[in-house]
Amino acid sequence: MQRWKIVLEYDGGPFVGWQRQSNGPSVQAALEDAIEGFAQESVAVHGAGRTDAGVHALAQVAHFDLEKETDADTVRDALNFHLKTHPIAVLGADPVGPDFHARFSATGRSYLYRIMNRRAPPALDLGRVWPVMRPLDHEAMHAGAQKLVGRHDFSSFRAKECQADSPVKTLDRLDVTRRDQEIHVIAEARSFLHHQVRNFVGTLVWVGEGKWTPGDVEKALKACDRSAGGPTAPAGGLFLTAVRYGPGG
Amino acid sequence: MQRWKIVLEYDGGPFVGWQRQSNGPSVQAALEDAIEGFAQESVAVHGAGRTDAGVHALAQVAHFDLEKETDADTVRDALNFHLKTHPIAVLGADPVGPDFHARFSATGRSYLYRIMNRRAPPALDLGRVWPVMRPLDHEAMHAGAQKLVGRHDFSSFRAKECQADSPVKTLDRLDVTRRDQEIHVIAEARSFLHHQVRNFVGTLVWVGEGKWTPGDVEKALKACDRSAGGPTAPAGGLFLTAVRYGPGG
Repeated sequence: MQRWKIVLEYDGGPFVGWQRQSNGPSVQAALEDAIEGFAQESVAVHGAGRTDAGVHALAQVAHFDLEKETDADTVRDALNFHLKTHPIAVLGADPVGPDFHARFSATGRSYLYRIMNRRAPPALDLGRVWPVMRPLDHEAMHAGAQKLVGRHDFSSFRAKECQADSPVKTLDRLDVTRRDQEIHVIAEARSFLHHQVRNFVGTLVWVGEGKWTPGDVEKALKACDRSAGGPTAPAGGLFLTAVRYGPGG
Repeated sequence: MQRWKIVLEYDGGPFVGWQRQSNGPSVQAALEDAIEGFAQESVAVHGAGRTDAGVHALAQVAHFDLEKETDADTVRDALNFHLKTHPIAVLGADPVGPDFHARFSATGRSYLYRIMNRRAPPALDLGRVWPVMRPLDHEAMHAGAQKLVGRHDFSSFRAKECQADSPVKTLDRLDVTRRDQEIHVIAEARSFLHHQVRNFVGTLVWVGEGKWTPGDVEKALKACDRSAGGPTAPAGGLFLTAVRYGPGG
């Protein structure tokens, strides 16, 4: 038995999300089917982050166990062959020890959120950006974001459905930058609550529009109540960009 | 009567190309329909570059004439409203003089060609890159590209169907650079022959694979015969990125 770690890129658009569900195609099910097609083994695939419907990944990490004796290049190429009807690509595969767990061994996760801030709708980036037509003050958004960095009770930015044991998390980075017509929000933490990044972004867009001050973000945080936070930004602008592991992971 | 210049972004994937054709949807027809929807006028739209099926635009330029009295923001927003079922966005609209012609007044055109050079297929960039799995030497490709810069008879890189009067063109720039797994080819000239950029790219990929030397590119150019050039790269990697005009355009 060998445990395999794989790194994945996918377009979240056609999926109900990472996790296998009865109501539509999931990334997890597509992978489990591809592994069965390749190795004739029915396995469970564990992902580092359970991305929601429409959320994309540039470098999701997952693991699974195989009885079949094979090598890393074969795992990558064979899975890509069996995934070819899906917008999922296996960027790399590595054999790892039996203690490695894609989700529980992860020491950090990074997300990118893309806002297209212009009058014209997106044509090439439809479903990959949140189109916001009103001009946004990205510097005010960044100032508001800094109120959220650090160890806090993030109940105000936590989805009702969140299954985490505690609303207390340490946010390592929340940077807002502009590149021409695009505003990028980069978030880094050991782990995130359900919808946490999208709730941050919805709130920061209120700041960018001038509806809220950066200080209002701090007030919302301190209220520890979801109804005090801003709206949830759409899924399509969100990308899981990296998962980090400690030495040996 | 007012002549309007518009700048367009589009995903070429669902279209038979820029030009109106009987065999499927074109960007030109979608625009003419949107203008009729907005202004109740049946007009001809003239584009700067007649992009092929599957070729994208970040900043195509077009013009048309309207009897309707209106302003630039209204033209942009109304056309975007009427285009909303198509992956076409009007980035800007400007009133121009009656001598302006999107195609004939243009003094320069820029294209970007994106190659995804990795083992894994594209997931997020499907239809937006040419996936080439074999490792490419982008420095050799750049060296080969420099043999093409300047004023030459480009018959070796000209599609059979090309309607240009002469195969002689001046290529101002053909740069090949790598950004991680992507290779970008940037081409600039006053105008291009049909398939010229895609035929350059197909040829340069032969150089990148080591099948040809940079010197072989020069030999192909001097043969002035399409059969001496390399293959045509796929449409989906090509983007029209800019059209330039002289003062007053």
